Amino acid sequence: MTVRAPASVGQKLEEDDTPALVLDLDAFERNLHTLRDAVKGKPVRIRPHAKTSKCPEVAKRQIALGAVGVCCQKVSEAEAMVEGGIGDVLVSNEVVGAQKLARLAGLAKKARIGICVDSAEGLAQLKASGADVDVYVEIEVGMKRCGVPPGKPAVDLARAIIASNLRFSGLQAYHGRAQHLRTLEERHAVIAAAAEAVRTTKDLLKKSGIACPTVTGAGSGTFMFEVQSGAWDEIQPGSYAFMDADYARNEWAAPLPRFEHALFVLTTVMSRPSPTLAVVDAGLKASSVDSGLPGLWQRPGLAYTHASDEHGWVEGAEAPRLGEKLLLVPGHCDPTINLYDWYVCVRRGAVEALWPITARGAGY
Amino acid sequence: MTVRAPASVGQKLEEDDTPALVLDLDAFERNLHTLRDAVKGKPVRIRPHAKTSKCPEVAKRQIALGAVGVCCQKVSEAEAMVEGGIGDVLVSNEVVGAQKLARLAGLAKKARIGICVDSAEGLAQLKASGADVDVYVEIEVGMKRCGVPPGKPAVDLARAIIASNLRFSGLQAYHGRAQHLRTLEERHAVIAAAAEAVRTTKDLLKKSGIACPTVTGAGSGTFMFEVQSGAWDEIQPGSYAFMDADYARNEWAAPLPRFEHALFVLTTVMSRPSPTLAVVDAGLKASSVDSGLPGLWQRPGLAYTHASDEHGWVEGAEAPRLGEKLLLVPGHCDPTINLYDWYVCVRRGAVEALWPITARGAGY
Repeated sequence: MTVRAPASVGQKLEEDDTPALVLDLDAFERNLHTLRDAVKGKPVRIRPHAKTSKCPEVAKRQIALGAVGVCCQKVSEAEAMVEGGIGDVLVSNEVVGAQKLARLAGLAKKARIGICVDSAEGLAQLKASGADVDVYVEIEVGMKRCGVPPGKPAVDLARAIIASNLRFSGLQAYHGRAQHLRTLEERHAVIAAAAEAVRTTKDLLKKSGIACPTVTGAGSGTFMFEVQSGAWDEIQPGSYAFMDADYARNEWAAPLPRFEHALFVLTTVMSRPSPTLAVVDAGLKASSVDSGLPGLWQRPGLAYTHASDEHGWVEGAEAPRLGEKLLLVPGHCDPTINLYDWYVCVRRGAVEALWPITARGAGY
Repeated sequence: MTVRAPASVGQKLEEDDTPALVLDLDAFERNLHTLRDAVKGKPVRIRPHAKTSKCPEVAKRQIALGAVGVCCQKVSEAEAMVEGGIGDVLVSNEVVGAQKLARLAGLAKKARIGICVDSAEGLAQLKASGADVDVYVEIEVGMKRCGVPPGKPAVDLARAIIASNLRFSGLQAYHGRAQHLRTLEERHAVIAAAAEAVRTTKDLLKKSGIACPTVTGAGSGTFMFEVQSGAWDEIQPGSYAFMDADYARNEWAAPLPRFEHALFVLTTVMSRPSPTLAVVDAGLKASSVDSGLPGLWQRPGLAYTHASDEHGWVEGAEAPRLGEKLLLVPGHCDPTINLYDWYVCVRRGAVEALWPITARGAGY
């Protein structure tokens, strides 16, 4: 049920079928270098998040530039990564239920696998599965999602991990909502509070005689604040490689480096009912709108104004002509990438490669 | 890159892995019967929209109950339908570009295929492709998307189709935005105006000596108004088989029959950070939020309050326990179905079948 690729290697970009998920390789590679350079010499490792890319080919290029492995959110994503040749995967999330844990245990025989726990019950299930994995305690650092409170509850859970003869490997401390706070000041303040929560927990672990090998977390919108705090050992950005319209609405300035849009949806004008309206063949099933409509790339005067399932409205004083192809900048890269089976990888206007998005739809 | 099914036949629903797209077969079959019964004896044919179902197994059951074939929005969807054994497919949409039209021409050698045009340029491209297809003129009946204006522009295009030695097969007249107007009165008024546009165009075609074999259109939220108007020959509902939370917010009363929720996302509580908050494993990649958050099925006192990529927040005075499984009612069925490779078909709590969603991701 994999759909065929909408392009072939060697084709020009404008010859591709549409809608197509286009990766600009030059911009993508610059983004990878920008991240590496930003943390060069700092005592942190890069573990990019494959929940964004869903693609071992992307992960391999990140690892070639120094990343230690990847993160995933789901066991099935981790399976796709290991299947694709990635040897070190942290499931930066809780895994609950005997079925999933049995799969995780199987995976841990083939690769280094980590997971998070945030409850005694979750830990008991993990123990029962026999999985040989690195176990992280997730602490709640402000986004009010999963995780135990920092401090004593985290130390108690770490102690329970050790008492279960499992490998306590450190803390997962990620603040997802912080990534999209618009001003640098807001993001800095929120991560400063998260860093305080991490430090409190590390201090208490130390006082309790428990080694904390790794604190892992951070995303594309904040990672330099985590790095500068000194409280994290590993960062988990995913979107930085691609960028999207929502991240572009953030304030970007030092200490955060600026990433480029490398991810696009190529679309065709399929109807032009009036001089000011063009209807394109990319709607809700081609670009996720949970974080806003897609933007139009390098077409000033035009705006993507509405989406239905398979159609997009592009309006402007002079709407593009029938058959014209446009590049959209997705509102949110993660759920948009998850709609496609292939990255159409383009360099200077020609298709250089087709990378299969093997973890697309891997949600369980 | 098809992900494995999250369930196996014979399993109990609560044993399925999650997130899973669940189809309640009893409710689904009742919905199919309800539609058939609603139009029984009326001079209209049923041509359900496979842009919703994306699945030949669904289409076959609709055809077994009298549907004449299906609609699609994309050539690649039509390919999946023909590949799956469906012999009559109307692409209820414009098809632009030589590549797509070449594929359409190939498909028309294997099955009866229809498409829409709304411009002389689109018609010229179709003619050049040599595709042997039924050609419909799409008229714009109020949703301001594709289509030529009703009346003379439509007649001119029909004449051009005939002059091109192509087969003019009638009018596509669909008002998408009408489907979700909340009150029956609003929907009735909008479809009355659309019917007037259809009648004007049919009258002018007749006066011009052009036969109009079929007027096709209508969706799940309005189809009885189209039927009662007498102006349509064929209806194209898709969501009626499944229902979603957004359609449920419509006023449902005679003449429209009431459909049941047959489509769900099964999810597991993966963290329970407090007595009033449970975090489930279904977020933006498991249920499309473009038309609102999913609802919780038969769990009064609980609400799904927020979604991130892979997580959902479920809140209530007493949040469900870790590991508990819940059914969500998707906000919008079409883009949600498009996230999955399998329907897990359940009857009275047990998995009866797994239907592959072969047109999932078929967007081009």
